[in-house]
Amino acid sequence: MDFQAVLKEVVENTDGGLATLLMDFEGIELGSYSKPDAPFDITTIGIEFSVVLKSIQRAAQMLDAGETAEVAIQAEKVTTLIRIVSDTYFLAFSMTPDANIGKARYLLRTRVPVLRKELT
Amino acid sequence: MDFQAVLKEVVENTDGGLATLLMDFEGIELGSYSKPDAPFDITTIGIEFSVVLKSIQRAAQMLDAGETAEVAIQAEKVTTLIRIVSDTYFLAFSMTPDANIGKARYLLRTRVPVLRKELT
Repeated sequence: MDFQAVLKEVVENTDGGLATLLMDFEGIELGSYSKPDAPFDITTIGIEFSVVLKSIQRAAQMLDAGETAEVAIQAEKVTTLIRIVSDTYFLAFSMTPDANIGKARYLLRTRVPVLRKELT
Repeated sequence: MDFQAVLKEVVENTDGGLATLLMDFEGIELGSYSKPDAPFDITTIGIEFSVVLKSIQRAAQMLDAGETAEVAIQAEKVTTLIRIVSDTYFLAFSMTPDANIGKARYLLRTRVPVLRKELT
């Protein structure tokens, strides 16, 4: 299964799923999948999140908190889950606020190892 | 109830609670509470998180995602929940990875309005 198929699978198998993005920490996109009616440009958001993740990793190091596994950002209109795939890549998944976030968490947790294998 | 009492209450009423911090987005601490055995300096972490939150708010604006309500960061050794209190302040709550995060979410959601009232 190539990574583009994984990106689509995660969105299409989550009620309320909007878009996924695989990106490196420099903000360069490797792949993405958006539902046709997604109300935003996931790549633009991903570039901003790459900055967020760097800050979070720095904070986690100061905390001696180990590798950061997951970041969840719940805003009024969109919930975004981010999981770190490797030293180089992260996966972001945006969904509606009423999406099944438990299912989304499960999908990311199980699919990230697949992506990691594809990418190394 | 003053805000220092709220900061203590949240930590002491969550199994696995470690520390709370009330800080403005410039990184200036208003108050904090740490359990005596908390393994890190919550203020130092908070300063780093103030940078994270600015990036998240910027990303949320680009998403037209409305006001960011909550950020959860799950690292290997520490989970941190952040809730925005007002245009000026945020509340960060760090706990062990096995803490009751549902209870923590509930406490922050119900106590943040109390803090907001104290601060305005």
